[in-house]
Amino acid sequence: MGTAADHDTHPPAPASHYNSDVGGNHRVEIPPPQPFITSLKNTLKETFFPDDPLRQFKNQPPAKKFVLGLQYLFPILEWGPRYTLQFFKSDLISGITIASLAIPQGISYARLANLPPILGLYSSFVPPLIYAVMGSSRDLAVGTVAVGSLLTAAMIGDVVDVNENPTLYLHLAFTATLFAGLFQACLGIFRLGFIVDFLSHATIVGFMGGAATVVCLQQLKGILGLDHFTHATDVISVMRSVFTQTHKWRWESAVLGLAFLFYLMIAKFFSKKKPKLFWISAMAPLTSVILGSVLVYLTHAEKHGVQVIGQLKKGINPLSIMNLNFDSRYLTTSIKTGIITGIIAMAEGIAVGRSFAMFKNYNIDGNKEMIAFGMMNIAGSCTSCYLTTGPFSRSAVNFNAGCKTAVSNIVMALAVMLTLLFLTPLFHYTPLVVLSSIIIAAMLGLIDYEAAIHLWHVDKFDFLVCMSAYVGVVFANIEIGLVMAIGLSILRVLLFVARPRTLVLGNLPDSTVYRNVDQYQNATNVPGILILEIDAPIYFANSSYLRERISRWIDDEEDRIKSTGETGLQYVILDMSAVGNIDTSGISMFEEVLKIIDRRGLKLGLANPGAEVMKKLNKSKFLETLGQEWVFLTVGEAVGACNYKLHTCNSKINSSNVSEKYSNNV
Amino acid sequence: MGTAADHDTHPPAPASHYNSDVGGNHRVEIPPPQPFITSLKNTLKETFFPDDPLRQFKNQPPAKKFVLGLQYLFPILEWGPRYTLQFFKSDLISGITIASLAIPQGISYARLANLPPILGLYSSFVPPLIYAVMGSSRDLAVGTVAVGSLLTAAMIGDVVDVNENPTLYLHLAFTATLFAGLFQACLGIFRLGFIVDFLSHATIVGFMGGAATVVCLQQLKGILGLDHFTHATDVISVMRSVFTQTHKWRWESAVLGLAFLFYLMIAKFFSKKKPKLFWISAMAPLTSVILGSVLVYLTHAEKHGVQVIGQLKKGINPLSIMNLNFDSRYLTTSIKTGIITGIIAMAEGIAVGRSFAMFKNYNIDGNKEMIAFGMMNIAGSCTSCYLTTGPFSRSAVNFNAGCKTAVSNIVMALAVMLTLLFLTPLFHYTPLVVLSSIIIAAMLGLIDYEAAIHLWHVDKFDFLVCMSAYVGVVFANIEIGLVMAIGLSILRVLLFVARPRTLVLGNLPDSTVYRNVDQYQNATNVPGILILEIDAPIYFANSSYLRERISRWIDDEEDRIKSTGETGLQYVILDMSAVGNIDTSGISMFEEVLKIIDRRGLKLGLANPGAEVMKKLNKSKFLETLGQEWVFLTVGEAVGACNYKLHTCNSKINSSNVSEKYSNNV
Repeated sequence: MGTAADHDTHPPAPASHYNSDVGGNHRVEIPPPQPFITSLKNTLKETFFPDDPLRQFKNQPPAKKFVLGLQYLFPILEWGPRYTLQFFKSDLISGITIASLAIPQGISYARLANLPPILGLYSSFVPPLIYAVMGSSRDLAVGTVAVGSLLTAAMIGDVVDVNENPTLYLHLAFTATLFAGLFQACLGIFRLGFIVDFLSHATIVGFMGGAATVVCLQQLKGILGLDHFTHATDVISVMRSVFTQTHKWRWESAVLGLAFLFYLMIAKFFSKKKPKLFWISAMAPLTSVILGSVLVYLTHAEKHGVQVIGQLKKGINPLSIMNLNFDSRYLTTSIKTGIITGIIAMAEGIAVGRSFAMFKNYNIDGNKEMIAFGMMNIAGSCTSCYLTTGPFSRSAVNFNAGCKTAVSNIVMALAVMLTLLFLTPLFHYTPLVVLSSIIIAAMLGLIDYEAAIHLWHVDKFDFLVCMSAYVGVVFANIEIGLVMAIGLSILRVLLFVARPRTLVLGNLPDSTVYRNVDQYQNATNVPGILILEIDAPIYFANSSYLRERISRWIDDEEDRIKSTGETGLQYVILDMSAVGNIDTSGISMFEEVLKIIDRRGLKLGLANPGAEVMKKLNKSKFLETLGQEWVFLTVGEAVGACNYKLHTCNSKINSSNVSEKYSNNV
Repeated sequence: MGTAADHDTHPPAPASHYNSDVGGNHRVEIPPPQPFITSLKNTLKETFFPDDPLRQFKNQPPAKKFVLGLQYLFPILEWGPRYTLQFFKSDLISGITIASLAIPQGISYARLANLPPILGLYSSFVPPLIYAVMGSSRDLAVGTVAVGSLLTAAMIGDVVDVNENPTLYLHLAFTATLFAGLFQACLGIFRLGFIVDFLSHATIVGFMGGAATVVCLQQLKGILGLDHFTHATDVISVMRSVFTQTHKWRWESAVLGLAFLFYLMIAKFFSKKKPKLFWISAMAPLTSVILGSVLVYLTHAEKHGVQVIGQLKKGINPLSIMNLNFDSRYLTTSIKTGIITGIIAMAEGIAVGRSFAMFKNYNIDGNKEMIAFGMMNIAGSCTSCYLTTGPFSRSAVNFNAGCKTAVSNIVMALAVMLTLLFLTPLFHYTPLVVLSSIIIAAMLGLIDYEAAIHLWHVDKFDFLVCMSAYVGVVFANIEIGLVMAIGLSILRVLLFVARPRTLVLGNLPDSTVYRNVDQYQNATNVPGILILEIDAPIYFANSSYLRERISRWIDDEEDRIKSTGETGLQYVILDMSAVGNIDTSGISMFEEVLKIIDRRGLKLGLANPGAEVMKKLNKSKFLETLGQEWVFLTVGEAVGACNYKLHTCNSKINSSNVSEKYSNNV
């Protein structure tokens, strides 16, 4: 025992002698060689087409393929012909419901983005029509979102002061929307939608909560009727801005605002209790707007410090394609704003689409959705709209109102068109404070503290990610919060790979199964054999660590044995079941570990290496160095082989003592 | 069969009825709860102290602990008292050998860094003394390195033109060295040494090869005797610079250079063939310098276009602590240069130290080494030295010359000191072209094309990483090459996690072992049961993918079954052995998968989830939703339970047909 050459001269006896786990005589197989091109093709397919979107095109005649292709691009061609009057009735109701929500919300969010209020209505007209043709969700209601609006204001406002140069600001907002659309469409076309997956659930909870908090804080301006307000979004600046102007607070405004907020929250509460009463909550913003406007009109409150929307231009969207600004001074700002708002908006839209699809049991192709969002924003940027997506609140109302297809979006667009053509004067007296209340009521629902508590219970690291997103957004700014959360999430993945778990396995009583001794309290060590499971792929990032850690396990085991006086350590078995892949640094690590183990007079065995690992260990000649007979199909088999050798060798010295121990473990 | 509530009413029969794999009745255990603080402590320990450096301090009296602590910081206190005359003889020989290499190399590399040649000698005096006291490697020979020199020249040269303002350039080089030292020491003190692990073997091969190519190209200036030369390092700029000045090429210089290069290469060739002749190669640079100087002195070639070093100041290192430049205009440059050169130099030094330690079977603590390198560079920056580390070539000579301890570094430092005090005038006539030849000869050894070919054979992605580092360095610049290679390496880790492999398992004949059907050609599917293995931790980055992929496997399996007319699919078993961890996004994914599977009328079973996974599935109540009885210890047990149910249910309809199939698979 114990020298490196040993295993060449004494191969272990055939499996059947010492192992009852496997009946036949199985070897760990090296997978059949695959041409480089085939494996490359498979890898690319798994990376970019995991959902196999072309499945339906297989084995179809060319004409059918063309039709399917058109239907793939324009889902309306697929469901349109099967559209019924019954469907239309449902879609009409839900369309009108979401329009009544879209109009006040659109105006509010446009103000949040520091854009003319009318843009909120424009953005609820063209984009929903595009989405109805190209989108594949049946429940998504298209519109602007608070977080996207706030981000637009923050990022463009950083470069252009909206009060000094409102036209330039407006044009940059259109340009940013164009880039957002282009970016979304490109991600979809190149099937890079998985980028969105890097926004984890925890990140989104924290980020949305933080953004909602920030948006609510911004509404203090409207509620308190302040004229001057900080441009910063962090809580400290806002609080300073609010409390240095206490003498300018207007009680009329505050009372009105709080009253409407109370009304909206009550409506929400009822709808939450009884989902059938969804329309109470859906109609509440519009009734608030009407009530508020009437109240102001009657009391002439606009002359007593209650700010109102004022003149809104009649008529549908003017073209804005000539207003796109590609001036090199502002280009980076537009592109950056476009990419960041585009990805955030898209993440929300796709998550919303997917959850409703999951509910109604149909499929959504994320990449196709991105193309639809992209086209919708590209078209929007040319027709005086800014960033739109599928917001959760509006889509939930749409769903509850019983929508059947994207026709509800068309109905909403038509309702908004009628408003634009005939009803804009009615908004003249709408008090801004009502809009603030509407925004706050919508935002409070986004602060999902219950989800944060759930994260704390289930996964502390996810909670940390969530909190850092929240704190970053609230105390610094939206971008910093987002970067911190994504950075932490990626760091976690890297740390997982850099510091994989190594587990000591023990034998479950009366079985040939070996499991982690920390998890299974009744698993027992096998005398003379240290069994370690490596729990991650072996890559450059963890190969040094694993080398150190394996040495340390051996040290610990030898210390333990010394103190208990058990049989000395003779074998180290590495269970490779969980090692999905290995790179050349990992192979060097194995060579070094083999040397370390040889030098200590021990022997190394590998159990159950997977296909990729076997292939690479074979190609790098490590299998030759180790000896193919030291690679086992299962841990049980490996232990059997070691015990057999331990037994036959030791029996020459002391047969009775060891065979007793041995018999306990086979 | 088939509805979600089923498993609550019909728990499977006890394990012993249908399963021979496990003798007893084992359950998958939920690990005992651990206080948050304990698990945090363990995680931090594994992340920062994987090598358990404080092991030797355990259970020692305070006085002993103090002595051990001192010895830990200053390893010389540990080996010094045991130092013998025998050791000294060996160290003396190897010290003189490396000094003879250090002097010409030092001068050459200082010129490569656009620094006064004498700095190369200074840098071989103070830093080796510091390392001898603080370093733990017995074989490392300290000195400047080509890549570090070139990087210094490129990064500082970007901001300050060395010809216009040589003093500022020099001072910035000292400052960058200080920051490199501080950075290295901090990494070591905060035990962040694992950052170096993110430089994979493939990255280093490509990067070093590229840097060596670039350095060789730069030597064309010296070899061809050109006065003006591009500051860019990429191959295109260099070639343009060389071939637009063909009329200025000096044949005297070229002939001399090529002759010495030939001599150096021959010497290297012999030493490689017979390692005992290491001294031929080690002495060759010094003999070249002497020969070249004598030749120039005799022929007065310095007056015929052969450039020489010229006056070198006598005397040892002057203090440079007052020359450190913290001017805010240059501070970012110094810090950036310091960090990048520091990390690259450190990576080489630690890799070299580790490989020789592995060879002689002693241990090196990477973090402690970093502190030693850091102190050496901090002290160097105050004594007119620039960046030093443990270069591979010099350490290999040291090793081959039979060094025993770091005393060889002290001998080298003393030899350099004597040179500085008395012999600098001898270098007056040393032709620059000889220095260029010395650099080229050293660099050619760094272009490790055999390693690149090996990478291609074993791991295509590693080859891609290696090539992108090489191409990036050679065609763009050193930083771009490095960023590309590290970016690709990290992308690979992320892609591994984002697109984990899912494998279909089949039953190995005559056994209860289930393995990947692609790897094991004789593994057979179990009728009615789809067994999938997930090969990575389940994180936000892959949860969407896994949901899609599992659906697709089910689709594929159902298609296959339809075409073959086998028993319809009834169960999906997920083998979780390789799932090391899960986050909250992953748990949501499971909830969705369970819904999808339920809706298709199938049942989901989990096999062998690990400790972390069980803990989180339990906390999130997923185990309740799934039903604890659908979690199995092994795949074999899960299949047994499913087959048992399949059998008892189907036998009511058609007993003979199914039981035949069933009996084949238990």
